[in-house]
Amino acid sequence: MVGVRAASVQVVIYRADMAERTYGELPQFPTGSTFRDRRELAASGVHRPLQAGICGGKDGSESIVVSGGYVDDEDRGEEIIYTGQGGNDPGTRRQIADQQLTVGNAGLARSQLEGNPVRVIRGAGGDAAYSPPTGYRYDGLFRVVDHWADTGIDGFQIWRFRLVSLDSIDSPPTDAIDGVPVDRSAAVVQRLIRSTAVANGVKKMHHYRCQVCGVDLTTPTGPYAEAAHIRALGRPHNGPDAPGNVLCLCPNHHALFDAGAIYVEAGLVRDWQGNELGVLRTVPKHKLDSAQLVYHRKHRCP
Amino acid sequence: MVGVRAASVQVVIYRADMAERTYGELPQFPTGSTFRDRRELAASGVHRPLQAGICGGKDGSESIVVSGGYVDDEDRGEEIIYTGQGGNDPGTRRQIADQQLTVGNAGLARSQLEGNPVRVIRGAGGDAAYSPPTGYRYDGLFRVVDHWADTGIDGFQIWRFRLVSLDSIDSPPTDAIDGVPVDRSAAVVQRLIRSTAVANGVKKMHHYRCQVCGVDLTTPTGPYAEAAHIRALGRPHNGPDAPGNVLCLCPNHHALFDAGAIYVEAGLVRDWQGNELGVLRTVPKHKLDSAQLVYHRKHRCP
Repeated sequence: MVGVRAASVQVVIYRADMAERTYGELPQFPTGSTFRDRRELAASGVHRPLQAGICGGKDGSESIVVSGGYVDDEDRGEEIIYTGQGGNDPGTRRQIADQQLTVGNAGLARSQLEGNPVRVIRGAGGDAAYSPPTGYRYDGLFRVVDHWADTGIDGFQIWRFRLVSLDSIDSPPTDAIDGVPVDRSAAVVQRLIRSTAVANGVKKMHHYRCQVCGVDLTTPTGPYAEAAHIRALGRPHNGPDAPGNVLCLCPNHHALFDAGAIYVEAGLVRDWQGNELGVLRTVPKHKLDSAQLVYHRKHRCP
Repeated sequence: MVGVRAASVQVVIYRADMAERTYGELPQFPTGSTFRDRRELAASGVHRPLQAGICGGKDGSESIVVSGGYVDDEDRGEEIIYTGQGGNDPGTRRQIADQQLTVGNAGLARSQLEGNPVRVIRGAGGDAAYSPPTGYRYDGLFRVVDHWADTGIDGFQIWRFRLVSLDSIDSPPTDAIDGVPVDRSAAVVQRLIRSTAVANGVKKMHHYRCQVCGVDLTTPTGPYAEAAHIRALGRPHNGPDAPGNVLCLCPNHHALFDAGAIYVEAGLVRDWQGNELGVLRTVPKHKLDSAQLVYHRKHRCP
């Protein structure tokens, strides 16, 4: 953990439009950066709201503060069970009403669905084993891996989120097993964030509709689609992590595509035996890389 | 690595019906068990064919022998790039014809799709760094994580399979991060095998049709469906790994179910706002545990 001197906080990236999200790490504030108070923290852009524990809305959440504000929080270091916002008396810190899956809570659920990383900031009020002695400290990127409704200690409904440190999530076997040392805390996390950004961009271009069947899956926290890499990332395929190598698919067609059950050629979707299934849905701004489609057909389909 | 004396090979589990698959570890032959030759290996049941490198057919593959028979094999210890069977001249060990995705090759692809573990046996002819000096050695369970067609060293099409040791695949964060030591090589692998068996059983009962929409996804290596745990396994939900807690779903309805977008009540499928979407498809021998369905709705749906 390295402290960041107050001087570096001069790089203010606060923006008026709170809805524009910045996911991932801010280069000026690496893990371990410290902040005197919520005002300094907000000014840094690492966690922009002055009071709320969650920076987010239904489009996603970019950061949270863990500082002992909710009796149901559980901090285990690499894993945090975080209580959603709302229904809380700031004076007594007890729950006095049910929480809803809205605003920041909906945002954390959305970040789970999209795979977006969440910046975690710990405050001095949190679990003594993992919190800074004073002020606030940025403790790196976490991923939301689960969320569920529960009855809290005070008898009201709360939404709970399980967040796991990206440092503790193992990189895919591709990176971990061929004896080549991988700088996990930098390269792997950066790649993961870039990959998430590319995936989100493609899904947005298609409004989360499957390019094969046009289905539009709806969940309580927004639409759901998957970004399917045409030529797989990592060894041995080494496909590029770029929009031209990504399709926006429903989970069913993602599974079929990866299993070599369908392929795309000259704008048509065919089954592996060559039968035409239909036209691939496209949008003008999403240009597919046809060399990757050729690779997919050649290597995946029998 | 422990050697197993010839005496223990008296426990013969060879069966006439080669199509009846035994996935996972045979209790009598733990990792490191050694065998003098292919006859002793076949008699043990760890790898039943006397000559073929793959024990399997289109329903799945239960074991492979890695012993240097194919020039395109790559052994990296925890990871193996295994060449499929066929097109190979046993005298010269060179490829003389294209391989097809049939028989044992289709079986390894099927094992990937189903998540079934594969027993790996190394023979003295393989890569010296990882192979026994003489005879054969059972080296534990691997999972098939990828398969693709490629042009081999000799210019013919081969099917390649990437297998990764189960010991090297990390258990989910649930098991790895709360400070409780986990006996990976025993408990985790056993749980994984049991979980796979329960999942396969439920999918078979429903003939791989989605219980929500009835869709039947077909791939070059057979039907594809997913086993969705109604109440999630592991902390904090701790759902039982039993057929009554599993639904057979297509990937789309699996995603919607996990996201709390749909729930099941009194045999009906509803969206999270209570709108009726249809009747859950059932089969008499698959009894669902209604307490788990209540848990799912209560904790997943807003």
